[in-house]
Amino acid sequence: MKLLLRTVDFRPNNRLREMDSAQFVVAPSMEDAIRLAGDVDAAIDYYSPAFIDAAAKLRWVQTLSTGVNGVPFDLLRERGIVLTNAGAYGPNMADHAMAFMLMLSRRIPQILRRQATERWPRQDKEVPDPGELDGQTLLIIGLGGIGLETAKRAAAFGMHIIATRRHVDRTAPDFVDELHPAEALDDLLPRADWINVSVPYTAETVDLIGDREFGLMRPGVHILCLARGGIINTNALLRALDSGRVAGAGLDVTDPEPLPDDHPLWDYPNVIITPHTSGQAETAHRRLGELVTDNLRRFLQDQPLRNIVDLTLKY
Amino acid sequence: MKLLLRTVDFRPNNRLREMDSAQFVVAPSMEDAIRLAGDVDAAIDYYSPAFIDAAAKLRWVQTLSTGVNGVPFDLLRERGIVLTNAGAYGPNMADHAMAFMLMLSRRIPQILRRQATERWPRQDKEVPDPGELDGQTLLIIGLGGIGLETAKRAAAFGMHIIATRRHVDRTAPDFVDELHPAEALDDLLPRADWINVSVPYTAETVDLIGDREFGLMRPGVHILCLARGGIINTNALLRALDSGRVAGAGLDVTDPEPLPDDHPLWDYPNVIITPHTSGQAETAHRRLGELVTDNLRRFLQDQPLRNIVDLTLKY
Repeated sequence: MKLLLRTVDFRPNNRLREMDSAQFVVAPSMEDAIRLAGDVDAAIDYYSPAFIDAAAKLRWVQTLSTGVNGVPFDLLRERGIVLTNAGAYGPNMADHAMAFMLMLSRRIPQILRRQATERWPRQDKEVPDPGELDGQTLLIIGLGGIGLETAKRAAAFGMHIIATRRHVDRTAPDFVDELHPAEALDDLLPRADWINVSVPYTAETVDLIGDREFGLMRPGVHILCLARGGIINTNALLRALDSGRVAGAGLDVTDPEPLPDDHPLWDYPNVIITPHTSGQAETAHRRLGELVTDNLRRFLQDQPLRNIVDLTLKY
Repeated sequence: MKLLLRTVDFRPNNRLREMDSAQFVVAPSMEDAIRLAGDVDAAIDYYSPAFIDAAAKLRWVQTLSTGVNGVPFDLLRERGIVLTNAGAYGPNMADHAMAFMLMLSRRIPQILRRQATERWPRQDKEVPDPGELDGQTLLIIGLGGIGLETAKRAAAFGMHIIATRRHVDRTAPDFVDELHPAEALDDLLPRADWINVSVPYTAETVDLIGDREFGLMRPGVHILCLARGGIINTNALLRALDSGRVAGAGLDVTDPEPLPDDHPLWDYPNVIITPHTSGQAETAHRRLGELVTDNLRRFLQDQPLRNIVDLTLKY
């Protein structure tokens, strides 16, 4: 059994390395990966069509990100190759989402922005009165692993949590007050004080939130996205900010990304932009290592893998 | 029965106003209050020595803040006047504290500061790797109403909560993992990744956190204060930031306050300063109104008041 790694970062522990059946090879570049592809059974972090075409024996691909846009799903499905994704970023991404919500609620971006010119304010009245999350309704669009971690945290602030998910047959934990199918979105948008857009980026979720959806929202709503740029239509968001429909936004992803220096989104005091850093955390890296090592062990021992991606649903 | 109010903000509801025994008078200024003092039984938001001296019949004072430094405790005690404080700010102040913790953990102040010159960063490496709260230890020094609300929220992030309180005989809820007496502080300081200084401002808590206490802390600790400036010694904090002992601070209160424009604290990218806004929230104002109205009702019906301040402990 031959397993291809991109770096030694996720090399398995000694016990695994000593298993007779396993041989680990490291390919630092795509060129190396294609050269070594011929006799590998599994690959960590390689999935280009050229690589897959060259890997005749390939049976499993593990990605190192949660989002799997860019993966050639049809090719994997035709070949019967199993795809697993990262799914190790729930706690740090939920922390990042809560940071956005609390900063917006407490008006901290406005305070920090004003400190550039007037440090301790002379008049209090220029900054809008801050709020609190207690009693507010949070709508999580696309309740996956990250959404569940966010819901758990938000519930402790006294928020009412409503969510959509494609598979509502799966049960949700107690801290999710209401779970609805994705088709219920139009009915839920008017009820939310806060909206966290957490769906995966697929052909169906491009522009999921556009002018029509902003029009259904409650005036003064706050919106977050840490998933992928393009799920919220950027021009529609600008119009919703200009009209006052949206009172604030927290974005870790943008469309276009990187956001150009002269893009109008930078100028809104009620928009927080972080440069796609919500997935970063030393601890997430460690959790990812544990997941990959565990999946390698499972693969070698012919056990079911964790975090299998549905190649038809594409997430 | 005559009750003195500063504004009509906290005028009681009609049912109360119609009680035969109650008469409400409004004094917009201290001058008015002293003029009207002679025959009032209770006063909302007036407690200067001059007023109390003039109010021979006074039996109860309700403050509109949680912190009661500045109240003439000895005079009230001699006169047998009951003091009640606000205590309506738990949820919004806990939200503010969690905003500080999450911003510091996710390195958001550093990101926002850098965006002034370089909007979407070209190199990721200039900003330190963000973290997450899961598994970190939070020490709450002075577990009161605000500390309990903070603990409830922090526990949902997977934090280990340890706390000190003067009266450890009172039980704490499940989300507080360990409750210790105030005297245990030196043993707890080395264990904390995060410290929230929540004690009331009294003669004993001035400079509670100084060079010696910073020296006991874990290198890389983060510290918060939303209580009152002067409980953390400002110069000791600056030294702890310079040495790297303290990795970041979130301050809603400072000493001096307002913090002068040229004060060195403004220059640290890992220090967040908000201008004493953590107590602000429309909802807190409503909760405060409910508390004051309820206490007025209790006073008129000769029932025990809520939020009685211990005039010897001075909080």
